[in-house]
Amino acid sequence: MIDQNAHSTTDLPTAFLNEIDQIIGRSNLKQGDAVANLDYGITAANFGATAVAFPSSTQDVAAIIKSAVAHGISVVPQGGRTGLVGGSVSAPGQIVLSTARLNGIVEIYPDERVAVVEAGVTLQALQHVASAHSLEPGIDLPSRGSATIGGMVSTNAGGISAFRYGVMRHRVLGLEAVLPDGSIFSDLTRVVKNAAGYDLKHLFIGAEGTLGIVTKVAIELEPVSAATATALFGLPTVEAALEATRLGLTVQYGHMRAAEAIWNSFFSLTAGEHRWSATDYASNYPVNLVLSLGGGAEEPLQMELGRIYEELSENYPDMAAVVATSQAQEAALWRLREDTDLIYRRHPSAPSFDVSVPLSQIEAYVARCLPELRSIDPIFDPYLFGHIADGNLHIVLNAAGTDLAPEKAAAVESVLYRDLRQSGGSFSAEHGIGSKRIHSLRETADPVKFALMTQIKSAMDGARTLNPGKVIG
Amino acid sequence: MIDQNAHSTTDLPTAFLNEIDQIIGRSNLKQGDAVANLDYGITAANFGATAVAFPSSTQDVAAIIKSAVAHGISVVPQGGRTGLVGGSVSAPGQIVLSTARLNGIVEIYPDERVAVVEAGVTLQALQHVASAHSLEPGIDLPSRGSATIGGMVSTNAGGISAFRYGVMRHRVLGLEAVLPDGSIFSDLTRVVKNAAGYDLKHLFIGAEGTLGIVTKVAIELEPVSAATATALFGLPTVEAALEATRLGLTVQYGHMRAAEAIWNSFFSLTAGEHRWSATDYASNYPVNLVLSLGGGAEEPLQMELGRIYEELSENYPDMAAVVATSQAQEAALWRLREDTDLIYRRHPSAPSFDVSVPLSQIEAYVARCLPELRSIDPIFDPYLFGHIADGNLHIVLNAAGTDLAPEKAAAVESVLYRDLRQSGGSFSAEHGIGSKRIHSLRETADPVKFALMTQIKSAMDGARTLNPGKVIG
Repeated sequence: MIDQNAHSTTDLPTAFLNEIDQIIGRSNLKQGDAVANLDYGITAANFGATAVAFPSSTQDVAAIIKSAVAHGISVVPQGGRTGLVGGSVSAPGQIVLSTARLNGIVEIYPDERVAVVEAGVTLQALQHVASAHSLEPGIDLPSRGSATIGGMVSTNAGGISAFRYGVMRHRVLGLEAVLPDGSIFSDLTRVVKNAAGYDLKHLFIGAEGTLGIVTKVAIELEPVSAATATALFGLPTVEAALEATRLGLTVQYGHMRAAEAIWNSFFSLTAGEHRWSATDYASNYPVNLVLSLGGGAEEPLQMELGRIYEELSENYPDMAAVVATSQAQEAALWRLREDTDLIYRRHPSAPSFDVSVPLSQIEAYVARCLPELRSIDPIFDPYLFGHIADGNLHIVLNAAGTDLAPEKAAAVESVLYRDLRQSGGSFSAEHGIGSKRIHSLRETADPVKFALMTQIKSAMDGARTLNPGKVIG
Repeated sequence: MIDQNAHSTTDLPTAFLNEIDQIIGRSNLKQGDAVANLDYGITAANFGATAVAFPSSTQDVAAIIKSAVAHGISVVPQGGRTGLVGGSVSAPGQIVLSTARLNGIVEIYPDERVAVVEAGVTLQALQHVASAHSLEPGIDLPSRGSATIGGMVSTNAGGISAFRYGVMRHRVLGLEAVLPDGSIFSDLTRVVKNAAGYDLKHLFIGAEGTLGIVTKVAIELEPVSAATATALFGLPTVEAALEATRLGLTVQYGHMRAAEAIWNSFFSLTAGEHRWSATDYASNYPVNLVLSLGGGAEEPLQMELGRIYEELSENYPDMAAVVATSQAQEAALWRLREDTDLIYRRHPSAPSFDVSVPLSQIEAYVARCLPELRSIDPIFDPYLFGHIADGNLHIVLNAAGTDLAPEKAAAVESVLYRDLRQSGGSFSAEHGIGSKRIHSLRETADPVKFALMTQIKSAMDGARTLNPGKVIG
């Protein structure tokens, strides 16, 4: 895979490329055609830069950054390239720094329920080694096979367990990162209580590689549940779904693992395509809720689901419930929530949004947005689903991406993002800002917070070496 | 309480004091004797400054800071003045800003399990209003009656529930703070998922008022347990206590509320003074563990405690257990852990330490430190107790504070803090740095992290207006 004509196919200075060669070896610096052969992930724009470095140690990352600073080259860090908002896109004249070879499990401490891993370890690889100790990372995502721990830290990943275990920020006990000047910030504590000065690791978590490149992470693990039980509830309102969630949070046997809401538009799609149906379960409940419990044994968990149903149906007599009685049935219920590919097959590159809404406002938010979207275009009837226990809604328009003119796209954003921050929510829940959402951040952020973000970036990376054009522009 | 001779009793410029008067009114600016009449809290040095301002709104805080900046006066924020490391001490020429009048419960959102409060609300006041909705803040401390939410955020408070619900940093969903230039940073989200740019609220959490003054906080609440059950286990080793903790973490009915270890030296003191004893419970177990469960009903919780005992006693046949069967018995068990006043009555101002040790190293850490302390002074036999599920140990020397010469104190710190950070722990777990522990922070911190702390402080507060001489010096 060594590209003999490497230097002639990029616009980076030969002196710089020679230094990178010396740091990581020629075979770990891909250029030109060798880059074109790599998997670019979500978007081909990730490989706008025509050189990709594959360091295998923190020291090599530091040396690359120092060389980049000396030559005035900017560096775009990449993990699994699964990000949806263009946080890893690169351009000619930049160099991509891939964490793919920083893929060592440094150590698992089963007695501490802590793992220390390098940034390029995938979530799935961590899940695999943790499961040998009946532990799990407490965070899970559909892209687990590609998404890396470093990328998940850099984007402060969320997922379905956040209501219980928090987002990635809450899972990280310590980290190591290379700063924009190539120095190594080392804060690999493995304890939750640490009041030894400013907790600056939080600057790197969620900064999408603009303030430092995360190289190692100490992450908390949780005991795995021996058994699970899952129900689908057909409900008349968001309020009913929130009441089910409250009951799930206070079960006495076991604990709630997930509470995922599926509004009717999306439910019709997945149930229809998968030909899913169940006796006495109508196809037109306004809100469907997948509620999953975990614990030591299936039977008492199913009894808890039964108790939740009984209590709910007193208030909502027209509701319906299906409790999965096999793993196949459980998987079928989850497919109703998780098969989002169906949307994109029907509407290629459908515009998708990812908002956080305070729980008490979800009902009103949805009730406001749907007619306002229809007033932009009468065909708009968005697919709606989300992590209802933490207020994170995913909204996907029933339109191909190419169908949306810029003015229409702006009108849609204005409907979905309006007053969201002021009322305690967030226009970007778990996908980040990247390069795509900078304008929305500028338009909706608290101006004092945005100014402070810019000030911190300037103080730490005045030369804009790390991932320029992302997050704050 | 208006001090007629106010201006003559302080060394602050009259023009500045007149401005403060205009902002908050004469009666809310205490000076001289009126300050001497206030409760100074943990140390009289908190009122080294002879003027204390009591603003009642964020806008007033901002106006005070702007006035202070204009006159070159530095500002020392104070909450409940319960801090143990001198984070609120003040000096002549400074002005204290008390949050005592910022004491409004802004709103409780029971359906969201979120409270928004002003910074000066005490933990107890928040607990009180939350309990009306069967909710609690998920964090608790003995100083709950005085400690304020703003102070707990600024020191990133810990306590007994941190292994389960995290430290204060994990409880804060959003906050508002006044920056060192008097601008208002507003980030009062009430959602856990928020990826809208750098999460800069974490700069203020744990910064002890050196980067901003926290004025409002959105804090997550948790459902209250209807019943509790508590046991005391007498165990041969730390390993046995950790195994008990593991079993507690995986109970199927209810959940573990607390796992507090009491080493023999402290247990002998509290059990002796309170004349506590129980049949078949010897007075000389190396480690005693208070293990508490919470859930819907007492009986199944006590059955879970019984199961933990059975499983433990297979591996540790010489262990003993006492299960409380009344609230009075439960309170008596807690007193064995919590009555730390007994130490300070016997050894006034006894030097105390607060370290975090990774769980797998606690046994070795204690085994190393005890003989090393005795080699400094053969009388040293420290009181040891702590939150064993998160590795936070409290170590109090059996010596009066006045008995410890500086060289001896340095030798003690060197024993207790040596290699702690490098091995994944922290020399300051939950008490912070304040003014007392700056030298230890400088000596033990990662130099790159410490330099970045200084850089952030300079970028945000170059004039050193906010709480100078704390955290980084």
